[in-house]
Amino acid sequence: MKVEKPIQNIIIIGGVAGGASAAARLRRLNEFANITIIERGPDVSFANCGLPYFVGGEIKQREVLAVQTPASLKAMLNLDVLIQHEATAIDRENKTVEVKDLIQGTIRQLSYDKLILAPGASPLVPPIPGIQDPAILTLRNLQDMDLIVEKASTASSALVVGAGFIGLEMAEQLRHIGLDVTLVELQDQVLPQLDFEMATPVQKALEQNGIKVHLSDGVREFKNENGQIQSTLQSGATIDADLVILSIGVRPENRLATDAGLKLGLRGHIKVNQYHQTSDPDIYAAGDVVETQCAITNGEANVPLGGPANRQGRIIADHINDPEKTLPYPGSIGTAIVRVFDIAAGVTGLNEKRLKVLGIPYKKTIVTDFDHASYYPGATRVTVKILHCPETHRLLGGQVFGQNGVDKRLDVLATALRGKLTVDDLEHLELAYAPPFGSAKDTINIAAFCARNQSDGWVECINSLPKDGEDFQLIDVRPPPMAAASPIEGAVTIPLTELRSKLNEIDKNRPVITICAFGKMSYFAARILVQHGYQVKSFAGGSEIQVP
Amino acid sequence: MKVEKPIQNIIIIGGVAGGASAAARLRRLNEFANITIIERGPDVSFANCGLPYFVGGEIKQREVLAVQTPASLKAMLNLDVLIQHEATAIDRENKTVEVKDLIQGTIRQLSYDKLILAPGASPLVPPIPGIQDPAILTLRNLQDMDLIVEKASTASSALVVGAGFIGLEMAEQLRHIGLDVTLVELQDQVLPQLDFEMATPVQKALEQNGIKVHLSDGVREFKNENGQIQSTLQSGATIDADLVILSIGVRPENRLATDAGLKLGLRGHIKVNQYHQTSDPDIYAAGDVVETQCAITNGEANVPLGGPANRQGRIIADHINDPEKTLPYPGSIGTAIVRVFDIAAGVTGLNEKRLKVLGIPYKKTIVTDFDHASYYPGATRVTVKILHCPETHRLLGGQVFGQNGVDKRLDVLATALRGKLTVDDLEHLELAYAPPFGSAKDTINIAAFCARNQSDGWVECINSLPKDGEDFQLIDVRPPPMAAASPIEGAVTIPLTELRSKLNEIDKNRPVITICAFGKMSYFAARILVQHGYQVKSFAGGSEIQVP
Repeated sequence: MKVEKPIQNIIIIGGVAGGASAAARLRRLNEFANITIIERGPDVSFANCGLPYFVGGEIKQREVLAVQTPASLKAMLNLDVLIQHEATAIDRENKTVEVKDLIQGTIRQLSYDKLILAPGASPLVPPIPGIQDPAILTLRNLQDMDLIVEKASTASSALVVGAGFIGLEMAEQLRHIGLDVTLVELQDQVLPQLDFEMATPVQKALEQNGIKVHLSDGVREFKNENGQIQSTLQSGATIDADLVILSIGVRPENRLATDAGLKLGLRGHIKVNQYHQTSDPDIYAAGDVVETQCAITNGEANVPLGGPANRQGRIIADHINDPEKTLPYPGSIGTAIVRVFDIAAGVTGLNEKRLKVLGIPYKKTIVTDFDHASYYPGATRVTVKILHCPETHRLLGGQVFGQNGVDKRLDVLATALRGKLTVDDLEHLELAYAPPFGSAKDTINIAAFCARNQSDGWVECINSLPKDGEDFQLIDVRPPPMAAASPIEGAVTIPLTELRSKLNEIDKNRPVITICAFGKMSYFAARILVQHGYQVKSFAGGSEIQVP
Repeated sequence: MKVEKPIQNIIIIGGVAGGASAAARLRRLNEFANITIIERGPDVSFANCGLPYFVGGEIKQREVLAVQTPASLKAMLNLDVLIQHEATAIDRENKTVEVKDLIQGTIRQLSYDKLILAPGASPLVPPIPGIQDPAILTLRNLQDMDLIVEKASTASSALVVGAGFIGLEMAEQLRHIGLDVTLVELQDQVLPQLDFEMATPVQKALEQNGIKVHLSDGVREFKNENGQIQSTLQSGATIDADLVILSIGVRPENRLATDAGLKLGLRGHIKVNQYHQTSDPDIYAAGDVVETQCAITNGEANVPLGGPANRQGRIIADHINDPEKTLPYPGSIGTAIVRVFDIAAGVTGLNEKRLKVLGIPYKKTIVTDFDHASYYPGATRVTVKILHCPETHRLLGGQVFGQNGVDKRLDVLATALRGKLTVDDLEHLELAYAPPFGSAKDTINIAAFCARNQSDGWVECINSLPKDGEDFQLIDVRPPPMAAASPIEGAVTIPLTELRSKLNEIDKNRPVITICAFGKMSYFAARILVQHGYQVKSFAGGSEIQVP
């Protein structure tokens, strides 16, 4: 019988999210190993998702973002944390890591039995002329945050480059402290992680709160003009700002792994197996730096989010401790949410753009309903988009926006994705209902009903009107006061309640499109007309949802 | 080839929830059938879950509770609604229903091709002496509500009998309008649908808001003393109140079905198959009146809730329209929530009491964490209890209480139950995380981690302290200030951070129980001690969770 040598030394490079989770779990499983965390910065296990909210003054105490210190982790978990130390090289043959003390300048070799790479990803800083100006900042750690806070304290204007999740949080928070904020985004929509029509209300919320949004545009050049940064866009427009935040994406910190000859994915992330072992089985990797599996397509995925990082760290700890008992990582789904003033928006799983790129067939459904019983005070609209496989009916992704209950619907959809549920299953979700909390038919149920109605052929939906020249009759079935208040161009108004008695006003030989505010009445109308022999499509989402 | 006669006449008895959903769906599928709803009361398709909130003045306009009228349903859906009509008999052979006009007193026979029974359930009114007093009321419809409102307007005190969901809503709302409220419940806890330790904080919330709670007690006799109702309890206590609300449960309205010889379940509900056909295939039933299948055990279930009723109605419509294309009803899970002042509590799936009755083996896990990132303002505690199968790890049920985010966690668990997910799956749920909305490790993930830790043998948890006489050492590992502020009887304080250096203070020959506020630190401590050779159990839930 082969006796394994007990694990003596575990080195973890990177002490946030994945690295910190691995360390804590390892200690609970193994009281006697030496566990060393190497962290380049002065902080360990800080709350990086909270940084924008300190900039905006919602979080008032800096210390709540840096709860753990080397001393607290020593006392609680008997971890050895080397802050302000950088791992500079890995010697896989001798199983050592070269570590440099960034304060003293000294270098030493640390031995490992198992090594965990959790260095994260760093903000992209493209080679745009002038980008090295000290007023052009990125946000990754507490020191970046301190710089932004300092700069913002005397600034009256800011430019945020990149309208992804972090960009929106920064734009919102800088506006919150009174700055004049401009947002520039290369794509034709904010929040490119969502599909166009689901991002439009987010853009509206930004603009309603005084943020200027430039889409389909990027920065060509930065110039420091007497302390102000003048940004010239590719369109030729110029924007002056006291402060520029770059939030255009991240790149994996893969230098150590590259130098050590570990296998990388196409986009430079470290390749790992289902136990998060790299191509060297004694070296593991977790978090933003890895290429893992997509739980929906089983293809490659890189999901730079805290939740997956934490759980990957946990699996690594389990696998180091007892490979036999460890369940494999089931792949990432990718769920993200952002609050933008009084609305929230988020996504889970695949979006339509990604499905198109992957060539995966899908059906889409967009519905709007109330976050709780409409007769109970305070009900607000919530819009849900779901994408499902036309053949298996399996859910492929979901997106939500609204004022309230957005996180709840995303969580339901994220759970459904993890469980590989179909839209047929979503119909029968029994979600918590009392008037302050929900509805007997939640928006998620309704989205599933609609998806099924399309799959079963009860209704044909369209998401945009036919191009000029195509012949069709557009029938607005909203109640007359609503139709009068916000007329729909080119539509004839026949309220749903009068439709059966006014069939003679509709030409049976020309195709009909029914439209209402949110896509429900137009479906009811389409059902009436189709059974009377009309060729009908219902305008999905309704006139209140903006469609490209 | 046999040609089916097209469906001409559909009669629906009961026009709320299941009946109304069936009617609306039927019309959308079949524009030409005659669809008649027979409703005993003066209202159709009213919002019965909203009634308590009109009593309490949170909903201010009565008309929002009764949005549909026979006229509106005629205009919108071409339904024939006979209000104030009672179906008095079914002639299955001739396929007719005898209907009595309750205003005119006339009787007629209506023919049906398909009949749908959705009469609901009526409040239980047990034969307690004096119970017929007009000041003793139940709440089922708008007329009941009006009576309560009228009575409450001059009342200064109320007794609510029964502390289930409706009882708690009524107690809260009557207190909300300033009444002196007493609550009596036969069981030894409020909210008997939850397990004891999850109902305790609800009781606390009731009492903190001035409601007097009598448990393990029932009413023996009601007496009208000069217009006040004096209730004498089984314990001998007496309670004077101007108004009494009975909310001790419901019984299915099964008289028509019984008379017609349809098969009933053990508790008097109408038996249906997966398409909600009764023992007569031309007669369907939905809602509170039916015995359906439990989606978790596949045994019988009666779930008197609006959500399942609506979806059953929908399946009935589909099946009447096209049996071939109809997916079967997948069984009920049973999710319910109640708000009690500033907290909410709810349940989905099976509780521990029910699992015991059914003899189903289970493991339980209780955890408390924050509803969103603790470093972001406004975080509050949320407690999650999950029950899972020790063998398959499949989730069997969940309960949640707290101030915020209770509905969200219930919805995640309800979705997991529908998908037959395991606690291993729950570990890997990627729930929406940004500081205002959640945490990188949500309470649900943490509950799953804990459940797995127990299953994998990493920790042995106990839910109550051993009985007197059993020898054990209770070690309180909370930080000294917390331990000093709320000392735990019989415990020795050794803060977690000092545990490794104070092992010599703990006797290795006596069993150890570790305890902290919420069960997390005590788990960490147990892991340290067990690896040092101690026999240790961690007190699950923590000292803040009250245990029987």
